[in-house]
Amino acid sequence: MKLSTIAKTMPVSGIRRMFALAAGYDDVINLCIGEPDFQTPAYIIDAGAYALRHGYTKYVDNAGLPALRKAIAAKMAAENGLKCSEKNVMVTNGAGQALMSSIMCALNPGDSLILADPYYPNYLGYCKLAGVNAIAVPTCEEERFHLTAAAIEKALTPSTRAILLNSPANPTGAVLSLTELEEIAELARKRDLLIIADEPYEAIVYEGRRNYSIASLPGMFERTITVNSFSKTFAMTGWRVGYAVAEEAFIRAMAVMQESLTSSVNAASQYAACAALAGDGREVLQMKDEYEKRAELLTRSLNRIKGFKFTKPEGAFYAFVNIKETGLTSAEVAQRLIEQGRVITTPGSAFGPSGEGYIRISFAANSDILAEATRRIEAVFGRKSCSRP
Amino acid sequence: MKLSTIAKTMPVSGIRRMFALAAGYDDVINLCIGEPDFQTPAYIIDAGAYALRHGYTKYVDNAGLPALRKAIAAKMAAENGLKCSEKNVMVTNGAGQALMSSIMCALNPGDSLILADPYYPNYLGYCKLAGVNAIAVPTCEEERFHLTAAAIEKALTPSTRAILLNSPANPTGAVLSLTELEEIAELARKRDLLIIADEPYEAIVYEGRRNYSIASLPGMFERTITVNSFSKTFAMTGWRVGYAVAEEAFIRAMAVMQESLTSSVNAASQYAACAALAGDGREVLQMKDEYEKRAELLTRSLNRIKGFKFTKPEGAFYAFVNIKETGLTSAEVAQRLIEQGRVITTPGSAFGPSGEGYIRISFAANSDILAEATRRIEAVFGRKSCSRP
Repeated sequence: MKLSTIAKTMPVSGIRRMFALAAGYDDVINLCIGEPDFQTPAYIIDAGAYALRHGYTKYVDNAGLPALRKAIAAKMAAENGLKCSEKNVMVTNGAGQALMSSIMCALNPGDSLILADPYYPNYLGYCKLAGVNAIAVPTCEEERFHLTAAAIEKALTPSTRAILLNSPANPTGAVLSLTELEEIAELARKRDLLIIADEPYEAIVYEGRRNYSIASLPGMFERTITVNSFSKTFAMTGWRVGYAVAEEAFIRAMAVMQESLTSSVNAASQYAACAALAGDGREVLQMKDEYEKRAELLTRSLNRIKGFKFTKPEGAFYAFVNIKETGLTSAEVAQRLIEQGRVITTPGSAFGPSGEGYIRISFAANSDILAEATRRIEAVFGRKSCSRP
Repeated sequence: MKLSTIAKTMPVSGIRRMFALAAGYDDVINLCIGEPDFQTPAYIIDAGAYALRHGYTKYVDNAGLPALRKAIAAKMAAENGLKCSEKNVMVTNGAGQALMSSIMCALNPGDSLILADPYYPNYLGYCKLAGVNAIAVPTCEEERFHLTAAAIEKALTPSTRAILLNSPANPTGAVLSLTELEEIAELARKRDLLIIADEPYEAIVYEGRRNYSIASLPGMFERTITVNSFSKTFAMTGWRVGYAVAEEAFIRAMAVMQESLTSSVNAASQYAACAALAGDGREVLQMKDEYEKRAELLTRSLNRIKGFKFTKPEGAFYAFVNIKETGLTSAEVAQRLIEQGRVITTPGSAFGPSGEGYIRISFAANSDILAEATRRIEAVFGRKSCSRP
């Protein structure tokens, strides 16, 4: 019974696998990780450094720094329409921990949870840790990968306890409309289901869209755990601050569980997160505008490549590119792009069966890098012949 | 099925409960939390602030910052006698996460794990999350609360897979000797058991003692997960950096699981932890010396109090005080100390059945505060009458 032989294995995410594969090559352009290329805004870094020098080096309450809980509650009330106070807020080590502990705290082993396919692969890891079955409901490009109430209803079984919504979605960029959310909310109320609403990309939506929190709809706060993060909105991935917002009794239970998970979140990061929310949001808008420009650049450049078809996403910072006309699988396309183009993308199959036929290109990389990447991709797959003579 | 009614409840630690109770009183002296009163040494804070300003704001590898893994491996080789490289190191959000994920990764639901009673209460939480049965083996003051191979052997059952050692121990201060560890190691090899060695107080040992890592003994590295932290040694509780050291294949599995737990540890904290290990250890020694002075001060002052008996601990920064002669339970003593003395301690019963008859007083508080606390405790319980006429 050596440790080396008993370690339990979890599935390795296809994203991490591509990342590891890339380590064997020089001069690669890495477009497989969902991490803003922007630096954390300076006023937030200043706040973090200030906090370190002013005593924010000690344990914090399990549920988070009181000032941060208050600031998050105020933001969720003002921007997301949730009726909540600081007692409804749990600060976590990133949105991932909020999701994992929400699932562990709300569901029992053997319960099922419905999610859209393609999905963020870590969702399966959270479910596996909790012994929960993830039921992936196929979505398709023709419907812009939107998960609909009708599709969810068809997938319901007696063990279904919850629906995991991710809008704006990774990898597809799907942003659910208010009407779609209302239909899902109605289903949840009718069939007595919980909602876990994962909304870390809420600030990154295009063409004047806005993102709605399903917890703001009538009768939904009491059955919804809203999860969010500072990582994408404020380019703060390495600070590890996310949060969950839900009913007070549920947050209390999560806080107790937190004592056994990681005790609390980095104190100085929580102070910096307070500062982030106190800002005027200028940097957030600038980053969003820049992401949107890149999405448009990619729409032009990727659609020139033979076998590639790409529609500008509704939100988030991923191009989910249809590569069916190459005649190759998504894994083959991604492999060829590494070997012949030194560009790392993620095969759509890493995001579930409905992701086959697509590759995901993160455009959390600056325009020059994206231009060079698309040149390389075009060099590998060639240019579409002009349809007009 | 509202969230408020389904939240799974975990046991609330007696330490956190006392802490919450204290919130209702003014002017309390809080001696229930195991957190150094010292500020993180300035050179470490400088490194953290430098890191924030120099790009350490992004995701880090699941297993940790390569430079930190290397520095920890070098420290464990030089100071703890472990033959290891950076591939044997997993950086975690505090020692607690290292313990929790070690248990989840190494054991299966239904397995049992042996630990000493009195124990750090969070150990039960980690086991509960993993579905593992914690078997608490009583230890006693007459044997300085040392867990012996003989006592472990008596407690073995067919489901026993692992032994959790905590030396120096919280709350008892027990520091296992090399001979005792050799006996436990022999048992582990003979009965094919794993060891989880939780050693966050290793730097805080008194009277010239040294702490030994059981993983350094022959044939033990392959069956031991050594867990440690920067929290106590460097007064870095709020930074949330701990680590596990074990066989490479096991660390790889932990790193994959980390993707679903918290993804990675705060980037700037990891840089600061590198700096901590690069220091000359002067502050660590100074803090240890100060803790030892306090232990001696408490030995004098607590033994003057009626019904109290206290022997200076071998390590860690807790006074585990025998209060049996008060004729009260540990909860009653702790309650009376809050109500009548405004001093928060932790009843020994919070640490398991063998903790009854004791209270834990953390002396991670400065000497003036400790002196005032003991004055207050003496005012509540009175002074022993002099035995000589």
